[in-house]
Amino acid sequence: MSETGQLPNLASDAVLKHSVPVPEDFVEVKGIDYSQDNAYNMSAKDLISSMSKMGFQASSLSQACNIIDQMRSWRGKHKSELQEHEQIGEFDDSGRQKTTIFMGYTSNLISSGLRDTLRYLVQHKMVSAIVATAGGIEEDLIKVLAPTYMGDFTLPGKGLRDQGMNRIGNLLVPNDNYCKFEEWIIPIFNKLLQEQQEALAQEGANALDANSSAILTPSKLIDRLGKEINDESSVLYWAHKNKIPIFCPALTDGSIGDMLFFHTFKSSPQQLRLDIVADIRKINSMAMAASRAGMIILGGGLIKHHICNACLMRNGADYAVYINTGQEFDGSDAGARPDEAISWGKIKVDAQSVKVYADVSLVFPLIVAATFASERP
Amino acid sequence: MSETGQLPNLASDAVLKHSVPVPEDFVEVKGIDYSQDNAYNMSAKDLISSMSKMGFQASSLSQACNIIDQMRSWRGKHKSELQEHEQIGEFDDSGRQKTTIFMGYTSNLISSGLRDTLRYLVQHKMVSAIVATAGGIEEDLIKVLAPTYMGDFTLPGKGLRDQGMNRIGNLLVPNDNYCKFEEWIIPIFNKLLQEQQEALAQEGANALDANSSAILTPSKLIDRLGKEINDESSVLYWAHKNKIPIFCPALTDGSIGDMLFFHTFKSSPQQLRLDIVADIRKINSMAMAASRAGMIILGGGLIKHHICNACLMRNGADYAVYINTGQEFDGSDAGARPDEAISWGKIKVDAQSVKVYADVSLVFPLIVAATFASERP
Amino acid sequence: MSETGQLPNLASDAVLKHSVPVPEDFVEVKGIDYSQDNAYNMSAKDLISSMSKMGFQASSLSQACNIIDQMRSWRGKHKSELQEHEQIGEFDDSGRQKTTIFMGYTSNLISSGLRDTLRYLVQHKMVSAIVATAGGIEEDLIKVLAPTYMGDFTLPGKGLRDQGMNRIGNLLVPNDNYCKFEEWIIPIFNKLLQEQQEALAQEGANALDANSSAILTPSKLIDRLGKEINDESSVLYWAHKNKIPIFCPALTDGSIGDMLFFHTFKSSPQQLRLDIVADIRKINSMAMAASRAGMIILGGGLIKHHICNACLMRNGADYAVYINTGQEFDGSDAGARPDEAISWGKIKVDAQSVKVYADVSLVFPLIVAATFASERP
Amino acid sequence: MSETGQLPNLASDAVLKHSVPVPEDFVEVKGIDYSQDNAYNMSAKDLISSMSKMGFQASSLSQACNIIDQMRSWRGKHKSELQEHEQIGEFDDSGRQKTTIFMGYTSNLISSGLRDTLRYLVQHKMVSAIVATAGGIEEDLIKVLAPTYMGDFTLPGKGLRDQGMNRIGNLLVPNDNYCKFEEWIIPIFNKLLQEQQEALAQEGANALDANSSAILTPSKLIDRLGKEINDESSVLYWAHKNKIPIFCPALTDGSIGDMLFFHTFKSSPQQLRLDIVADIRKINSMAMAASRAGMIILGGGLIKHHICNACLMRNGADYAVYINTGQEFDGSDAGARPDEAISWGKIKVDAQSVKVYADVSLVFPLIVAATFASERP
Repeated sequence: MSETGQLPNLASDAVLKHSVPVPEDFVEVKGIDYSQDNAYNMSAKDLISSMSKMGFQASSLSQACNIIDQMRSWRGKHKSELQEHEQIGEFDDSGRQKTTIFMGYTSNLISSGLRDTLRYLVQHKMVSAIVATAGGIEEDLIKVLAPTYMGDFTLPGKGLRDQGMNRIGNLLVPNDNYCKFEEWIIPIFNKLLQEQQEALAQEGANALDANSSAILTPSKLIDRLGKEINDESSVLYWAHKNKIPIFCPALTDGSIGDMLFFHTFKSSPQQLRLDIVADIRKINSMAMAASRAGMIILGGGLIKHHICNACLMRNGADYAVYINTGQEFDGSDAGARPDEAISWGKIKVDAQSVKVYADVSLVFPLIVAATFASERP
Repeated sequence: MSETGQLPNLASDAVLKHSVPVPEDFVEVKGIDYSQDNAYNMSAKDLISSMSKMGFQASSLSQACNIIDQMRSWRGKHKSELQEHEQIGEFDDSGRQKTTIFMGYTSNLISSGLRDTLRYLVQHKMVSAIVATAGGIEEDLIKVLAPTYMGDFTLPGKGLRDQGMNRIGNLLVPNDNYCKFEEWIIPIFNKLLQEQQEALAQEGANALDANSSAILTPSKLIDRLGKEINDESSVLYWAHKNKIPIFCPALTDGSIGDMLFFHTFKSSPQQLRLDIVADIRKINSMAMAASRAGMIILGGGLIKHHICNACLMRNGADYAVYINTGQEFDGSDAGARPDEAISWGKIKVDAQSVKVYADVSLVFPLIVAATFASERP
Repeated sequence: MSETGQLPNLASDAVLKHSVPVPEDFVEVKGIDYSQDNAYNMSAKDLISSMSKMGFQASSLSQACNIIDQMRSWRGKHKSELQEHEQIGEFDDSGRQKTTIFMGYTSNLISSGLRDTLRYLVQHKMVSAIVATAGGIEEDLIKVLAPTYMGDFTLPGKGLRDQGMNRIGNLLVPNDNYCKFEEWIIPIFNKLLQEQQEALAQEGANALDANSSAILTPSKLIDRLGKEINDESSVLYWAHKNKIPIFCPALTDGSIGDMLFFHTFKSSPQQLRLDIVADIRKINSMAMAASRAGMIILGGGLIKHHICNACLMRNGADYAVYINTGQEFDGSDAGARPDEAISWGKIKVDAQSVKVYADVSLVFPLIVAATFASERP
Repeated sequence: MSETGQLPNLASDAVLKHSVPVPEDFVEVKGIDYSQDNAYNMSAKDLISSMSKMGFQASSLSQACNIIDQMRSWRGKHKSELQEHEQIGEFDDSGRQKTTIFMGYTSNLISSGLRDTLRYLVQHKMVSAIVATAGGIEEDLIKVLAPTYMGDFTLPGKGLRDQGMNRIGNLLVPNDNYCKFEEWIIPIFNKLLQEQQEALAQEGANALDANSSAILTPSKLIDRLGKEINDESSVLYWAHKNKIPIFCPALTDGSIGDMLFFHTFKSSPQQLRLDIVADIRKINSMAMAASRAGMIILGGGLIKHHICNACLMRNGADYAVYINTGQEFDGSDAGARPDEAISWGKIKVDAQSVKVYADVSLVFPLIVAATFASERP
């Protein structure tokens, strides 16, 4: 092109292409209005509200709060309007149908200070069922026995192993905590094995029956541990107290598994048995019985897939909030967007759903402050 | 600062600070030498070798291949040099100790074309044990019944659900495949339930014994499914044939779980039982028996934690290769670097370890081509 | 290993290894105390304070606020205590030295609703200098002419192009906005060219002098545009008014560049000239003159590197807060942790620094609410 | 739900929903066929070909190679078939139109061993123009003066600063390298300033003319540095020799900027001037002149946006390959998918485009081996 020529139409047509008239329902991007008094040291609710039209993840965060408020405030029919076989799912204190909320979290969240927030939700019956990984069970118990400490992402592993300090991101758990855990849990396993033996001796082949008391499942074991720990700081304690089941199909994948492994030697040749079939029946049945189903999934992996899969049994959840850092490009379930779950029937086509791309610890305190904890229960 | 003044020493001292003499053992960054004949349409081994001093993940990829070559080539004592109680772990055909290699993979890898590569490793006994998630089991079986197809990450979920097409990243699985799977697996469950009933009737409380035949575990069920599918394209088939155990503690978290759930209604009031305690005993025992232990972990979540946890029982793996896209900043186990596992005693302080930050599908074909499949077995 | 043997010491020694006594200065992980009244609909400051010992990014976010509070509250000597050549850098209204705060942001943040927050900081002179990318300049001006709208990450590009709707993540900018921008800016370029011609005719070779008025730089042009736009919603307007320089060495990389390109045809054979050498002198001089230097870097790429590089001239910043989603594994500057900048002398060895791994839109509203906007200015 | 009831249709209908017949054009997922001889120590081309139907990023990588092969092999009309004003853009040696290929890369890639691969492409005229960041210019020159070394991502910054070792990811650059660079470049700046002074004295206000020799631009300076370095290992050397322009609008953002800053003091009151307007004219004109335009963008930030923006001038590129680790959720340009660029008219609606989500160092050696370097040039 000549250095002194005319501007070719090619460029001006491309750059200055006219757009169609802006549709009336278009929403302008807007931020915080600092002329308002409430723009200073903002409250959680005001902040979330101001973020709704900000774009990017700010809007997603605001939408997550909106969906959570919808799931927790939805009410259906009164029990008295329902036939007996319809009187399933969750009801509020006044007898009206409410959303069955499945909350999932990964182990690290219990290791972090989020445990207090998760416990708050369970203590006040704000969720209906939980799915966690093994660490999400045992670290709750262990924290009753001894604390977890602040560390740093860059502390070298060799020095830590020498000192018996286990690192979880920027947290540290002294290995003594696991020694204390072993002392606490082995007697419980002894008791449980004895109970299982007695039931099995009595029931024989009937032990395969649905209601056999010889069958110990992860959710039953977790409930028992919540009862035994008997401490108000514990998620498991309140889950036991409030009859909120906690599912953890791979309960052996962590310190509890180490202890069960050790126990097989101590109790040899007998071994405790943990059945996972009864639990899949239980969680799927809860999803099917739900008047409406909501999912709050904090992290990825098993806990995400397990809740979604249960909701497939009812042809999809009505509300879904995912919070994690996974990306979809590697085809992982962790990174899959809600829209992928729609293709499977795990989220309803017309459901409210959102994914917030964030470390849970960064946003869940704010989310809870603006929703479940926006007022004293 | 005056616009016309002298250059202050502050800046020149900071910018032109002298460095210490370069230590003799420093290694220069180098790339591919295109003056060489083998730099064209390079072979896997040459490429990997040329990437070793490239920096960033290129170097990590090269290191991963190096570690894999070390784990597969290591040989210890001959069986005849060992006392009887020492004759545990893995041995090569000539009777010399070799590395027990634990390979973990997430479900999506079996859905992808990597299944053929994973099967190749199992078919030729190149790994000793596998940990997978539920989808990693069932999708291997389902692919024998009907294919998975190429799709796109952006296909809208609603349209797909209408057509019964399930999306996994950029793949599609027709829902009919799951119908075929149900037809195939339910008769097997019927048989298994009958076997379990008979064993239980016979054994009673002895069913808690370690070797009870009434106890079905995920690894036993997977072995049986590998036998029943009887197809050379299947990972499970070869795992059964080559006695390579596949562990999957949360086997109910997927289509197999759906089918087990359905089966509880069909077989009501009886239910199959799947015990996870015997499996934790089994995998931990393998880790303890290993002369040397190597880990090849493809993806994050349960499969990563489970292998690492097993290796804690032997005070750490000797070799570790992680490949995933997880990041450590959220404190997730998926994102944890090998150095975090060292603090726990899951990887030995002096082990060879590396993490490659990548979608597995992007690098594992190349890694295998340069290592396990560098020559015909 | 025998199925009925003793638990080998190998496992119990590894799992139950004792830890050293917990050092006295260890800090326990703690979360929100929901027994407190302020735990409900929490204020920004209370929330940030409660997150400090939560771990993971919650702690990093809290630390970021702490560092920002340190940088904005630091005060050094009074002007009267300083020799004349020492009276450089920033001073507060009472004449005491304060931190020179460099804030960097990427274009997308101005497109989002964060623009109002960024403007607030500039309006109230809470930062000393800004580094932005071209879009971060022009989108601020364009928003005065016409709004940006909420969209969705998944809107297909083809349909949008047909309608003349440009997508930025989940935002939409009608292409007409750029047509309006062209109408607004071309007359300004005409004026500037005339000024440059006149100055050059007068100065000749003296135009290379530091203070030549023939030299137009990105920062001078931006200041002029801020004056011309003359609208209180604009970041550039307040930057002009408050004499806060905005640096943008690659100012041609965006719509302003398109317009400059078009203008070269309109004004042919003459062309406006934009010199970038005078601006590197200007930003580096600001860093050197600073009594203390703080960096608040929102996003990655050029804006991050440019501020860090300027702070090298003073042997490092005293405070550094990075917020972005980049990862270090690919060796990118965007993903580099503050500790990498320490190796270069861009952050002081003893500086306060933190990186928050997050989309800026997710956390910066909260950060500002808890710091700069914790009380009315 | 009763524990012994029938399986509700709700679940079976959802799980066993039938899919539509599989469309005939569906492509089965397939992996490597290890029955083939070429499946061992695979060549780059065979590997890429085997990955095409693997799914996830394996398929994207394969597609990237396919698009690159299309862009490099496309041929249009012969020069003799074109009118004189149509004889623009790139032609092959036989006089036929070929694709104008814009390659962009970030600084870190030149620091890594990929520099040899990038140089190979420039040496053999396989690309038409380059966009880089400042570090991508200076590190190429500095490597001629002294080497870069392998390091580690976890080396602490304090110790490195003490030793004068600068870290770039897992690489180390001794600070002495920058001292050598200063010694090399300052005399060149002196010469250039003298030339600029003389031209300006001669031209006066005509220095604003398009072809003024008083105007130094980043691309002209880079070309001159390539000539001066005069070393066959250098990308800049070959770019100079092969007349491949290298654009870098923010050339002051790095060590060259430090040296220009220092030089303003040495040459005070005069300063070299670097104009960025002429360069935007030059790159945009190249895009408009291109018969077809292809983009190979390695990394994110400015280099990505700048190439895309230039291609808007021609209403979009015909081929686009992005490789980076950015994600779209934060609305960053770095993370934007090709489909976002389509909405802007930067990529044609019917173009071939793909994004590979990966660290460039991990995949670009393989990509080049399977495409540009699949045979000796």
